[in-house]
Parts: sequence; C-alpha cells; structure tokens
Amino acid sequence: MQLGLVGLGRMGGNMRGRIRSAGHEVVGYDRNPDISDVASIAEMVAKLAAPRVVWTMVPAGHITESTIDELGGLLSAGDIIIDGGNSKFTDDQPRADRLAPKGIGYMDCGVSGGIWGNQNGYALMVGGSEENVATCMPIFEALKPAGPYGFVHAGPVGAGHYTKMVHNGIEYGMMQALAEGWELLEASEYVDNVPGAIKSWREGSVVKSWLLDLLDRALDGDPELAKLKGYAEDTGEGRWTVDEAVRLAVPLHVIAASLFTRFESRQADSPAMKAVAALRQQFGGHAVVG
Amino acid sequence: MQLGLVGLGRMGGNMRGRIRSAGHEVVGYDRNPDISDVASIAEMVAKLAAPRVVWTMVPAGHITESTIDELGGLLSAGDIIIDGGNSKFTDDQPRADRLAPKGIGYMDCGVSGGIWGNQNGYALMVGGSEENVATCMPIFEALKPAGPYGFVHAGPVGAGHYTKMVHNGIEYGMMQALAEGWELLEASEYVDNVPGAIKSWREGSVVKSWLLDLLDRALDGDPELAKLKGYAEDTGEGRWTVDEAVRLAVPLHVIAASLFTRFESRQADSPAMKAVAALRQQFGGHAVVG
Amino acid sequence: MQLGLVGLGRMGGNMRGRIRSAGHEVVGYDRNPDISDVASIAEMVAKLAAPRVVWTMVPAGHITESTIDELGGLLSAGDIIIDGGNSKFTDDQPRADRLAPKGIGYMDCGVSGGIWGNQNGYALMVGGSEENVATCMPIFEALKPAGPYGFVHAGPVGAGHYTKMVHNGIEYGMMQALAEGWELLEASEYVDNVPGAIKSWREGSVVKSWLLDLLDRALDGDPELAKLKGYAEDTGEGRWTVDEAVRLAVPLHVIAASLFTRFESRQADSPAMKAVAALRQQFGGHAVVG
Amino acid sequence: MQLGLVGLGRMGGNMRGRIRSAGHEVVGYDRNPDISDVASIAEMVAKLAAPRVVWTMVPAGHITESTIDELGGLLSAGDIIIDGGNSKFTDDQPRADRLAPKGIGYMDCGVSGGIWGNQNGYALMVGGSEENVATCMPIFEALKPAGPYGFVHAGPVGAGHYTKMVHNGIEYGMMQALAEGWELLEASEYVDNVPGAIKSWREGSVVKSWLLDLLDRALDGDPELAKLKGYAEDTGEGRWTVDEAVRLAVPLHVIAASLFTRFESRQADSPAMKAVAALRQQFGGHAVVG
Repeated sequence: MQLGLVGLGRMGGNMRGRIRSAGHEVVGYDRNPDISDVASIAEMVAKLAAPRVVWTMVPAGHITESTIDELGGLLSAGDIIIDGGNSKFTDDQPRADRLAPKGIGYMDCGVSGGIWGNQNGYALMVGGSEENVATCMPIFEALKPAGPYGFVHAGPVGAGHYTKMVHNGIEYGMMQALAEGWELLEASEYVDNVPGAIKSWREGSVVKSWLLDLLDRALDGDPELAKLKGYAEDTGEGRWTVDEAVRLAVPLHVIAASLFTRFESRQADSPAMKAVAALRQQFGGHAVVG
Repeated sequence: MQLGLVGLGRMGGNMRGRIRSAGHEVVGYDRNPDISDVASIAEMVAKLAAPRVVWTMVPAGHITESTIDELGGLLSAGDIIIDGGNSKFTDDQPRADRLAPKGIGYMDCGVSGGIWGNQNGYALMVGGSEENVATCMPIFEALKPAGPYGFVHAGPVGAGHYTKMVHNGIEYGMMQALAEGWELLEASEYVDNVPGAIKSWREGSVVKSWLLDLLDRALDGDPELAKLKGYAEDTGEGRWTVDEAVRLAVPLHVIAASLFTRFESRQADSPAMKAVAALRQQFGGHAVVG
Repeated sequence: MQLGLVGLGRMGGNMRGRIRSAGHEVVGYDRNPDISDVASIAEMVAKLAAPRVVWTMVPAGHITESTIDELGGLLSAGDIIIDGGNSKFTDDQPRADRLAPKGIGYMDCGVSGGIWGNQNGYALMVGGSEENVATCMPIFEALKPAGPYGFVHAGPVGAGHYTKMVHNGIEYGMMQALAEGWELLEASEYVDNVPGAIKSWREGSVVKSWLLDLLDRALDGDPELAKLKGYAEDTGEGRWTVDEAVRLAVPLHVIAASLFTRFESRQADSPAMKAVAALRQQFGGHAVVG
Repeated sequence: MQLGLVGLGRMGGNMRGRIRSAGHEVVGYDRNPDISDVASIAEMVAKLAAPRVVWTMVPAGHITESTIDELGGLLSAGDIIIDGGNSKFTDDQPRADRLAPKGIGYMDCGVSGGIWGNQNGYALMVGGSEENVATCMPIFEALKPAGPYGFVHAGPVGAGHYTKMVHNGIEYGMMQALAEGWELLEASEYVDNVPGAIKSWREGSVVKSWLLDLLDRALDGDPELAKLKGYAEDTGEGRWTVDEAVRLAVPLHVIAASLFTRFESRQADSPAMKAVAALRQQFGGHAVVG
C-alpha cells in the first residue's frame, strides 16, 4: 500500500526504509530537502491515491499539531492520519475531534525501539477504531518485529500513546534498578569482576533483558563508565506517567523515584540538601551532630 | 567428572538431572530417601574418588552450616565444597576459614533461574580461587546456559553470593517497575486491552525482558490476576541488598522501595497509616480535612 | 470593619466567631438556614456597605466557582473577594481575570490550623495585590495567631493557595515520618514504652512539633491506636504538590512517597503486588524462591 | 548528688554546666586538660563517693568501649555507668553483660537537643532497670527540660539508644519533608516571598515545629541559603533505623529515602545515573530519546 510519511529524522528515516523493504510505497516529506522525497506536504498528499494514509513522525508539541492541522486541510473524507510521535495521550482525542467533521480518521501509535528498531522492528502501540487499524495493518506489519509480538491495538484514540507512556515509565524503573545494582556492585569490596557479573546475567538469570544487554554493551567499551557523566534527561512520558498515577491514586513508588533521580542528576547542587545542611548547622553547631 | 550433591529439592533435583545429562556422575543425597541416591552424606562421600567436589543445595542458615561442617569432617585435603544455596555473602569466608586448616577448598555459587533453569540453564555467579574454579568448571559448564553468558567468576570467596544478592535486588526493582506499570494500565480508562499491551512489548520494545515474558504468561491464564492475592514474600537477598546500600552509602531508592512494598503487602493493616489517620483525626476533627 | 462570609461549616463557622471576637461585623451566609445570618448571598451583599469584602469558605471546585461568579454579579467596582477554601492555585488567576473587568478585586488565602484554629489562630497564606492585602489586613489580623507569625503575603494572586499547597505537602511528609518511626518502635522488641517515648519528645528533642503533640494526644486515648484503621484520605494539595514537582523537575522523594502510602492505605488489595506475586509464581513455581 | 562525667566536648561540657546549675557536683574528665576537672579517669573515680554514677559522653565506637572498660576496672559493685553517647543499641547489652559480674550497673541514655540543650534542656531516652533509673533520676531531672516532657524510661538496657535512633530517623524524614517543600517553593514562579512563607508557618500551621523554626532562623541570615552547599553527612542512627526496618519488615519509605538523599548529596557524580546515561545512549543513539 501507499503511505505518506512526514518527518524523516532518525526515527522516521529508518521507518521509511523498513516500510519500503516490506514492499510498500512511501512518499516521505521532511523540512530538510536533502532527505525529503517531495518539496512540500501538499506535494506529498498529491502523490497519494485516496483513500490516503499519512503518518506523522515529528517532534511532539507545536510541530505535530501544526502538521496535523495542515494535513487536515489537505486530506479528504476517508483518509487517515496516524501520529507516531511522542505526543501526550490527552492531545489525541482533540485531534480526532478536529478531523472528524472532515471525515478524516485519526489514530495514535506509540513507537518503541530506538535506533535498533530499523533492524529489530519497532514495538507499536495503537489507539483508534477497529476499522482504521485494519486499514493500516499492512504498515504496522511492516514496522513491527517478526513474530507474534510487538503490536497491540490497545483501545480507542489515545490508548496507543497512553500505552507507550506507561511503557516508558516501566523503562525508567527498570533502568534505575539496573543502575542501582551496578552502583552497589561497583561500591563493594566483595566483587572484583563487575562487568563480568553484568555480562553473565544475559542468559539464565531472572533479570535477563534488553536493557541488561545494553548495559553490558556499554561496559564492553567503558568498563567503569568513566567517559560518561551521571546526567540523564527525561522525556515527557516519565512525567506524564507520574501525573497519571497521581490522578488515578495509583502508588508508583519506583517509577516516581526513578524520575526524581533524573531530576537530581541535572542539579549542580541540591537546594533541598542545602536546607538539610542549614538545619543540621542550626541544631548542631558547626560540627555535625544529631 | 564426579560430583556429590547434597539437597535434591526443586532446585537440587533439577540440577542433578542437568549435570547428569551433560555426562557427569552425580551422587546425590537428600533427607528424603525416596529421592536420595545414598543413605547418608558419609555414604555419598565414600562413593566419590578423591579429590572430591561436593555441592550443597540446602536451605540457607543452620542447615547449610551444619551440612558444611559435617562435610568438613568427612572430606580430605584437596577436596572442594561449593555452596549453591541462598547463603548470605558474609557466611562464606568464615566457612572457608573453618575448612582451610583441613586443606578443603570452599567456593560460593549464586544460582539464578528458578524452575526454568533445568531447561534453560542456570545463571551461575561464583566466588573462590582461580584454581578451584578451574577444577569445577566442567560442572559449571553443565549447569549454565549454552553460549557465552550465564557464568561469572566474580571474585574471591563471597563474591558469588554477593553478586547473586545484587542480582536479586535488581530483580525486585524490575518486578516492581513492571507491577506498577501494569497497575496503572489497569486503573486507567484509556487502555482497553491491557494483557495485549503487555504481550506486545515482548519484542521490539525497550522493556523486553524475561520478567515481562513471565508477566504475559501469567496474564494469559488470568487476564486480571484475579486469582492472586497481592502478597509477596521476600527472601534474604533483597534485605541484604538494602543493608549493603546502607553500609556503603549507596542510594538505592528503587530497590529499597520495592522491598518495602513487599513488607506492606504482608500487613493486614498498616500501623503507619493508623498513625496518619490518628493525626488527621486530631487536627481535622472527625471529618477528613487538611 | 465589615465582612461578608460565605460558608459557615466547621472552618467558616469558627472563623466567623473569631473575627467577631476581634470586634468586626460579619454577615455570614450558609445554605443551612439554621446557621446563616441571612437568607441569601444577595441579602448578605445588601447588608454590607461599599467597598465590600467577601470571604468564600466553601468546598473547592464547582461550588467555589459558582459562588464567586454569583458574587461577581452582585458586587461592585472596588469590592474584594477573598477565597479561603482549598482551591487549586491555578484556579485563582482565572477568577481574578473574570472579576477584573467589573473592577472587583480578588485574593486567595490558604488557611491552615484545622479545628484548632478557632482557639490558636489560623495560619494565613495570602496571594493578591499589596493594596488589597492592606485593605483586608484587619480581617487577617483577627484570624491569625497572636504574635509575629501565622501570616504571609506570599505574592500575587495564586501565591496564597500555592503556599498552602506546599505546606500540606510538607505536612504529608512529616506525618509519614512520624508514622514510620512509631511503627518501627511498635515493631521492635527493644522498646517497652512506646507512648512514653513519643510523649517524651514533646520537649527538648529535635522532632518536637505540633504533629508530634497530636500523636501523643491520640496515643493518650488509644495507646496502640487499636481503634483506628490504617486508612488515610488525601486532599488535593498533596497531589498538586507532586504534580508541581513533576512540572518543575524538583525531586520530591519523601512527599511523593507519603502520598503514595495514602493511596495504598485505601486499596483492599494491591494490584501491583498481585503482579509481583504472579511473577514469583512464574519463575519460582508454587514455592517462594528467588 | 555526685556525678562523674567523661567527655567534656560540645555536648558534655554543656551538660556539666547544666547539671551543676541544678546543684549537683560534677567531676568531669576530658583528654583536653584545659577543660578537664581531673587529670585522669582514675582520679575522677577517686573523687566520687560510692555508690558512684559515671556518665560517658564520648564518641561512639572504640573510645566509648575502651572508656567503659576502663571504668569497669575502676568502679565497684553498686556503681552505675550511663552511656549518653550515640552508641548503637546493640552495643548496650554486651556492655551490661561485661559489667554485671562486677556488680556494676549499666544504663543507656539517648540525648537529643544539640547545642540548644544547654538552654532548653535535653530530651533523654533511657534504657535500664527501674532501680538504676530511680537512683539517677536527679541527674536526669537536671538535664531534661522543665515540665512534663523530655524524659522517658523506654525499657530495659538498649531501649534508650533504640528510642534515640528512631527519633533521629524521624528527624531525617521531617528535615527532608521541609527541605523538599522549600525547594519547590523556591523553584516555583508562583511565590515571591519564600522566607516569609516559611516564617509564617511558625504559628497556626500544621507543620509548626522546632525544625521549621530553625529553617526560618537559617533563612533570616541567608534567604536563599546561598552560602551553603547541598551536602549532608549522616550519623549512624539514620542508617541503623533503616537496618532495623529491614530486619523487622517495616516499610520505611520516607526515612530510607531521606537517608539516600544524604548519600547522594555527598557524591561528586552519581554512578547510577552514569549507568542510566549509558543505557539512554545505547538505545537512543547520541541524541536523547526514549
């Protein structure tokens, strides 16, 4: 089938390749003419036969909104837009509502897999109607990994981004668990061969996982991670996960703590710990007593 | 080679089978005569040609200590004892010290893999001397998974159990991260197909892992886990991990929180929350105000 | 001076008394005619001489919004509305914006002190213009405790409710710290006289605090808190505090954990711990192994 | 009554003064001859009439142990040693057992109040026999604050240090709660007058407490705590509290998190966050994607 694809960056560019490899026709548009197949979104739309399917893979926020609105003006009844970016789930239904009067369908698709997705396939989490999912299934089949996993129709519009959000929340917690364990091994006088321990867990252990594989890979090149700073950005998904936990009264000790350690990693100095230091100074004098 | 194996329960029994399948001779002893190869530890030792290797796979604590001490009285200089149970790492060096005057070697081997190890191989984390590791390598080869992973000589005596302990700490954190994410998905009105979401992550996603596979497997039989109580024991390793974090001043937010949620799961009512309720009643009157 | 006061429940009723005791005239309105001074808000407004000041002390949410809108229709340029309820800080500026075209001023005032405020004075945290604060200062003076503390003009509109929100977040953390310590003392075999320990800290200790006083008071009547369930509601402020921490990338380990334990206290069974139990069953068989 | 007092540092020196002010005779010994009343512990003991009471106020650990052992050699049956230092509760019973054959009594006394205790009185938490407590009560009365609070006989030997330990655990949690709230206020654009907000809570609020008073005091001299680094030591008590929580299966989310943030405050860079950064780099390429 045909697909219009807006956004050919690291993710979108790889996805174009993977979909084409599966035998589909992709008309890709990017602001960067060096990698774009067409000169404009309008030209992209013109090259697609109705009913059209267009996938947006651009940065979440204003660019996604304006791209979808531009597409809304160019597409026709019966066409479908799929947003595969990291949009917040609450943005999905409003988009669907804006497109519905024109008869344009909308789906959200959370995409996981990072730079490895091109090779391994992308995990896809889709929100939308049964009918629209069926229409676009060939594209999903092209992108997802081989085998029975890697795709879910999670629910109506919004369910895809929601599922991806929770996925990322879990990811934060798993990463932090691995990171804490590695730090403890490094700190201890009992274990000489920390990279070997991490590597050994890749088979047979309860913690075997892709993230563990990646940690082993990182340690292969830098056994004490000496080249790295302990600094981690967070993307919206981790924050939204905690916000949802608060909204729904779900206790999320581990995922919230994982998010907070990322916040801490970006602070040159901790204001809270200044306050703790101030209190200790107040009640204990200059010396450190309790 | 020959191996004496004390303890033929779920783990030990399976390990006997796996080692035998690799072509080694195992003389197994268990208190239960129905599954034991010999009538006593002494008979087991008598059936082994020196230099002997004996693996203990009995419950951590008194039973392991008394078993090792009994073996210490029966074995000879040049023999080796490997403890594969869930002993605390601080118990290992004292054992080695008790056995050393007799010329008996000691190694500790943390074993992961649960009931699946028989089929997939066990992840082995070993502490001991280079020489003793080399001597016992055929047994480790028989037990570990095929391929380059699943075995580490982590350091001197104690390093094996230490590495296993940290492994389990990480396991606690990963399990809790998955559990929290699943609870949030279940709580939300946005996602209809929660089991499908979990299943989809098994390929292509960042959180793909054996624990995720097992969660999917559990949901296959019980999509809302309705048959289970939210009750989780903890084994010593999780507690020791937190104790070590405290000793070494390593911040272990996620692993400690995972341990604490297990504690909470076993409380019929939370004393702390009674105190919170009492305080709210005191300052807010009967009604619930802040 | 004169004050209109809408809402004469536990808080509002006591506040009317305290303001009157300070020599001011309060015209109070409540839906309950038994405690109301007037039959309607309109009558209340009619009894006040311009420029009027009206304080709303009704449940946060729709009732507060509709009350303020009703007042907006009845008051005149130069009048002032103060909302003393537990509104979210983000609701304040929109209210001010709705009232501004009519020349009606708006202030927000977070009120702490619970049922003890009538006797001890209420801690007041105010957001609004310097001019409006000055106009209403006699009322604030009447409500606040004697002495130099208990009142702050925290900033422009919204600052009062924001300050109160953070106050409650801190309150959650302090309560949880006390509750955890009490639970540990109760659990330990080392301390016989737990209520005596709590009581002793009321003077000389680093943790002396009003919340500790209240815990001692609760234990006086029920030394093991046997009459209480470990169940705690949360009000909006705790949740908003965590939401703000997420928005502003402030690590709030303790306050978030305190909120989450309240969530847990209200769960008949923990879904997350069901998932943990499921995982343990999957990898460990029926028995509990790690 | 007479008291021997070993250790005249910040705490011991002030205590000598307070006890003397109450009309008792104190013979103090310190290694520093400039502040010592006598040249040796032996001379101190010689100046006391039997039955003697000697209070040790020296650094926990080897110095306390050797001081108590030296006293054990000098004192007689019927004498009493009170350790007022920050000893671990598990050290108390062994000391009592070492002294018992000589007929020397032992008590432990946790002391809180910091540098303010001299003026306000010290909170005392005592473990020991009823009889020994009664004998030493005049000294406790001299040290404790006026009024009904500030002293508890918490249980048998060890109970005093245990109670003090939990007190400090609560202190960690309360300090962290205040610190987090202050950081959030500072981070927010909603509140202009953060020091004023803190100050206002000193009366009428739910969080009024001595620690809040001290935070206000610190902000008076340095409104943004700009002179301080976000660095906080921890004393043994916080760690032991978490260890006890682990031993007794008590969930201590808040106190443990407070301890961990102190650990973090002392790390130049976070190893765990290096691991998180490594993982993000591995799955996301050089750019930061999730």
